[in-house]
Amino acid sequence: MNSDTVYLDYAAATPVDERVMAAMLPFFGDKFYNPSSPYAPAVEVRHHYEAAKQRIAECIGAKGSDIIMTAGATESINLMFAGVTGHVVTTAIEHIAVLAAARLHEHSLVAVDSTGRVAAADVRAAIREDTVLVSISLANNEIGTIQPLRNISEVIQEVKRERHATGNQTPLYFHSDASQGAGLCDINVARLGVDALTLNAAKLYGPKQVGLLWIDSHVRLNPLIVGGGQERGLRSGTEQVAGTVGFALALELAVGGRKSEVVRLGELRDMMQSRLTHNFPDAVISGNQRHRLANYLSISFPNIDAERIVFLLEAKGVFVATGSACAANKGTRSHVLIALGLDPSVADGSLRITLGRGTDKLGCERALEYIVGAVLSERTRMDR
Amino acid sequence: MNSDTVYLDYAAATPVDERVMAAMLPFFGDKFYNPSSPYAPAVEVRHHYEAAKQRIAECIGAKGSDIIMTAGATESINLMFAGVTGHVVTTAIEHIAVLAAARLHEHSLVAVDSTGRVAAADVRAAIREDTVLVSISLANNEIGTIQPLRNISEVIQEVKRERHATGNQTPLYFHSDASQGAGLCDINVARLGVDALTLNAAKLYGPKQVGLLWIDSHVRLNPLIVGGGQERGLRSGTEQVAGTVGFALALELAVGGRKSEVVRLGELRDMMQSRLTHNFPDAVISGNQRHRLANYLSISFPNIDAERIVFLLEAKGVFVATGSACAANKGTRSHVLIALGLDPSVADGSLRITLGRGTDKLGCERALEYIVGAVLSERTRMDR
Repeated sequence: MNSDTVYLDYAAATPVDERVMAAMLPFFGDKFYNPSSPYAPAVEVRHHYEAAKQRIAECIGAKGSDIIMTAGATESINLMFAGVTGHVVTTAIEHIAVLAAARLHEHSLVAVDSTGRVAAADVRAAIREDTVLVSISLANNEIGTIQPLRNISEVIQEVKRERHATGNQTPLYFHSDASQGAGLCDINVARLGVDALTLNAAKLYGPKQVGLLWIDSHVRLNPLIVGGGQERGLRSGTEQVAGTVGFALALELAVGGRKSEVVRLGELRDMMQSRLTHNFPDAVISGNQRHRLANYLSISFPNIDAERIVFLLEAKGVFVATGSACAANKGTRSHVLIALGLDPSVADGSLRITLGRGTDKLGCERALEYIVGAVLSERTRMDR
Repeated sequence: MNSDTVYLDYAAATPVDERVMAAMLPFFGDKFYNPSSPYAPAVEVRHHYEAAKQRIAECIGAKGSDIIMTAGATESINLMFAGVTGHVVTTAIEHIAVLAAARLHEHSLVAVDSTGRVAAADVRAAIREDTVLVSISLANNEIGTIQPLRNISEVIQEVKRERHATGNQTPLYFHSDASQGAGLCDINVARLGVDALTLNAAKLYGPKQVGLLWIDSHVRLNPLIVGGGQERGLRSGTEQVAGTVGFALALELAVGGRKSEVVRLGELRDMMQSRLTHNFPDAVISGNQRHRLANYLSISFPNIDAERIVFLLEAKGVFVATGSACAANKGTRSHVLIALGLDPSVADGSLRITLGRGTDKLGCERALEYIVGAVLSERTRMDR
């Protein structure tokens, strides 16, 4: 990144950490062998691959053999959903990949409160006799609200006990897409209480198109991609060794630096939030103020076109998003902000500001100056 | 690769070309932006991505907008097969990914002759009223036999004309997995006469887990991976910009160097073949001697355990395969060699020797010396 620019869209993409890149490079070159080949240097590549999966597993408190490497969170989510047959439950504010995958099943969308939190009781009420999957993101990708996965896990355990008592043998799996927030939340699968977890290296200063689906040993899925039988037969294709080695280091760095980064980014974010709400008392902050990713600031300026603000900021070298990158690209209104109950005139004036490892106080100050200027200039233009 | 080693398994994996790596690097670093983000540097990344797809398209005589990027040939094949509903036709010697994908449909496997060639008339005979897909590899991944795609395309056109005349509106698509041999054969889609083509960067000195499915504009598929709607809605997920840029250059280099490389590798391969058959008159060469990839030598030493030869060669720093890497890893007998009619005692003594860009005369001479020595030593051991 250019030092004259201020990047505040870490939720959309992160640069690959230099240490991660260095760890990956040998596997594009000298260690390029197919991990399924029989000779020693290929077997060594296989060992590097398995070791990387084991390191990833340790970061989430799991076994390496339960990790299925994929080409990103979208594929992981698709594998989880396509892997089961039956009714599925998710929330109205999930990432579009989850919503699209859910639509391939009979599905129920649980509503969220005005802060984006889902209530465990509402999830419980949506679970039917034939529900096989509950999928709820760890943290929302537009507003950063963190979901009470542990509470939801408890109601799911209740349902499982009831099913056991009544002889209903339908499996019930709890999956969480933890792509967003994995670097800023505890992602120990036992503490989260999930049966399956999606992670994405691209959000963690690792390579793009590298993701994983962890599934607990008891989870039974049908494969999405068949062939050579790699990844326990659930995801065929020659293994992504470079990406997996990179993912392992990226995840270790994220987990290791999590606590200090939560404090650092939380302070910077709070400073930005308080300065902007001070300047614009009618600005609306979205997301749960207690349970929110430390790097997220979703702020709406009523009656302003956020796309114009993004455009004005871009000219100053400040890069922020309106809603999620996917939705933004299609010019559609954020389904998340609408689900929170925001008026369209407010939702359309929403910026998603997400901080990351390269964010510092100076950059935040500069961004603030330009954001305030851009909003004022838009208001002046519209008042004319 | 170590200069003391001779790698002769280019069909299993290729190192990434240094120029390709250099082209990819910026997209892990400075140009890491999400191509769906709205600000200028992200839009620039989008342009690089689209330009790379256009360059890939030009290598195969197609339009960039008809290229769907995937995480490799296995996914491309799965997308092609999962994308259609109905009876499918393929051959008995396809890559295991094609066979596995075909098994999810009603399917017919066309037999091949003893050289691994499929006859267009046999394909014609296998096509039913409800056949939607014929999938035949450009070249076989174990023996290198090149299929008469053009002739097959002609009989498929006949069927299409008949269907049109009789009012049968079932679509009929001709797909080819050209992963193996793309660098050594003409891959112009019009000249091949295909409606869909799978390519794999990992076989072309490009990155692993980067592939594509080209589909002609008239082909209608259902998506395999749903979500943000990238790749014309057929393959969601944040785009693999680095890999696509790398694939474009890798393909250009392969296409540009094809003719000279076919001559160079063909001469080296022929030298190895003639020396080995001279030393071992009972050795059996598999694959079509006229229509065969220039870098392929599949040779069987009757009553020898090829896995022991691989092991002995490995100790000398010579790396070759028995059959395909996938099959080898599972200790199963090659379905390809059996389909050719090889006796198991012959098939089990088969080496797959595949040459590539790093192969030179000196290396071939050295490999020959060790292969001859290994086979002789095994024979002596067994005669004792």
